[in-house]
Amino acid sequence: MTEEQQPRIKIDACFSPHLYPVYADGESIVVIIDILRATSAICTAFEHGAEKIIPVATVDEAREWKKKGFLAGAERDAIQVEGFDFGNSPFSYMGDVVKGKTIAITTTNGTQAIDAAKDAYKVVIGSFLNIDALCEWLIHEQRNILLLCSGWKNKFNLEDAIFAGAVTEALTSNNDHFKLGDACLALKYLYQMAKQDPYKFMSQASHKERLARLNLKKDIKYCLTPNLTRVIPILKDGALVKMQAEEVLAKSVS
Amino acid sequence: MTEEQQPRIKIDACFSPHLYPVYADGESIVVIIDILRATSAICTAFEHGAEKIIPVATVDEAREWKKKGFLAGAERDAIQVEGFDFGNSPFSYMGDVVKGKTIAITTTNGTQAIDAAKDAYKVVIGSFLNIDALCEWLIHEQRNILLLCSGWKNKFNLEDAIFAGAVTEALTSNNDHFKLGDACLALKYLYQMAKQDPYKFMSQASHKERLARLNLKKDIKYCLTPNLTRVIPILKDGALVKMQAEEVLAKSVS
Repeated sequence: MTEEQQPRIKIDACFSPHLYPVYADGESIVVIIDILRATSAICTAFEHGAEKIIPVATVDEAREWKKKGFLAGAERDAIQVEGFDFGNSPFSYMGDVVKGKTIAITTTNGTQAIDAAKDAYKVVIGSFLNIDALCEWLIHEQRNILLLCSGWKNKFNLEDAIFAGAVTEALTSNNDHFKLGDACLALKYLYQMAKQDPYKFMSQASHKERLARLNLKKDIKYCLTPNLTRVIPILKDGALVKMQAEEVLAKSVS
Repeated sequence: MTEEQQPRIKIDACFSPHLYPVYADGESIVVIIDILRATSAICTAFEHGAEKIIPVATVDEAREWKKKGFLAGAERDAIQVEGFDFGNSPFSYMGDVVKGKTIAITTTNGTQAIDAAKDAYKVVIGSFLNIDALCEWLIHEQRNILLLCSGWKNKFNLEDAIFAGAVTEALTSNNDHFKLGDACLALKYLYQMAKQDPYKFMSQASHKERLARLNLKKDIKYCLTPNLTRVIPILKDGALVKMQAEEVLAKSVS
């Protein structure tokens, strides 16, 4: 097959878990995005050796896992729910406390997005922390891609959109096999405006006051840091496990 | 009340009728946007003297109105449905054929958005054709604003997003009383990229092939033309009627 004949791979973006059914086609890889902070925390936990993460939609479900003896994280409205081991700050998912562990987790937005997309062909977790590994793997897969932004309570949010734009730019900068949906076209331009200083750009966001009030500056700066890990969390039988980009990419070469 | 104490007016944007319930607050003015072509056609019809436009969600409902002796327009997938007087091309809603008439209309996206938002505080129709009048009136109203993009079958589309960005820029360029939601922040940047040549920018859009196939170049250029009318269609008791910006604005001065 010549280069010209190759089918073009579609990339689209969806700005709300509530809208996912409109975009779902059963064939695309779905990238879950919740930059502040669920998907950044999940990538961090795997980088620090977590064995498995069980995303659940409700606080009650997370509590059930905790009763069974597992570690459990629960966040609502950016605050850790009482009685849990973690909220969704990436800094709490570091070190020996997570190493080798299975952790149940529920968050305001990110785990809702995972739940919405759970029947997709493949579901992976994206964040600035693993962006290069993620994009290399997406190019390797040669499948249509849906970037599912978790947003804030089903509304569009800026940080997830900027990240989806960053992925779009990374995927399309060196090849033209990708056919962009309108949302990705728009996001690519947005990222071009944001990329010089994402933190400053983000400071315009609607919930900046809320985040400032919660003293999350350190978290935000961390969550906007690219490539701290090569791990790509992937959903298997209802739980996230780690896929190491190198292993997959190496197999395809050998 | 000093200027500093004035409450800031919120502007947000919603990219899909399906997502409207997430944004609905019962208090905002909702601007319905379907640039290609429903809201452009509706503004055109009123500029040409139409008396009333009854937006209906289904082709069957439109057919019922036609049976009762009314003019009726029906479009699905950008094509006029057989047996109707109009599709959604603005050029068909011009001249004596619409003057003084009541017209029932159903379209793939625009009338679905009107239907979704019908219980909002006020529902008005926006297009490039009436953008200045619309923005002057919105500033005059001093109410929260939701820009409801009709999209394409509940997915994000570029032309509605660009228009929502144009409205955001117009409203915020000379005053800082508006507090932008994240979607409007992103759209304002998008419009800055698009405004020099919206037609060229639009030519990247996902459905450019479909539109080119249907020979809609003339329609698109018309629909991107600013300020051909001062009419603002507004929903009253289930029907759109015309509000003349000058009359409302003059009243507020006198």
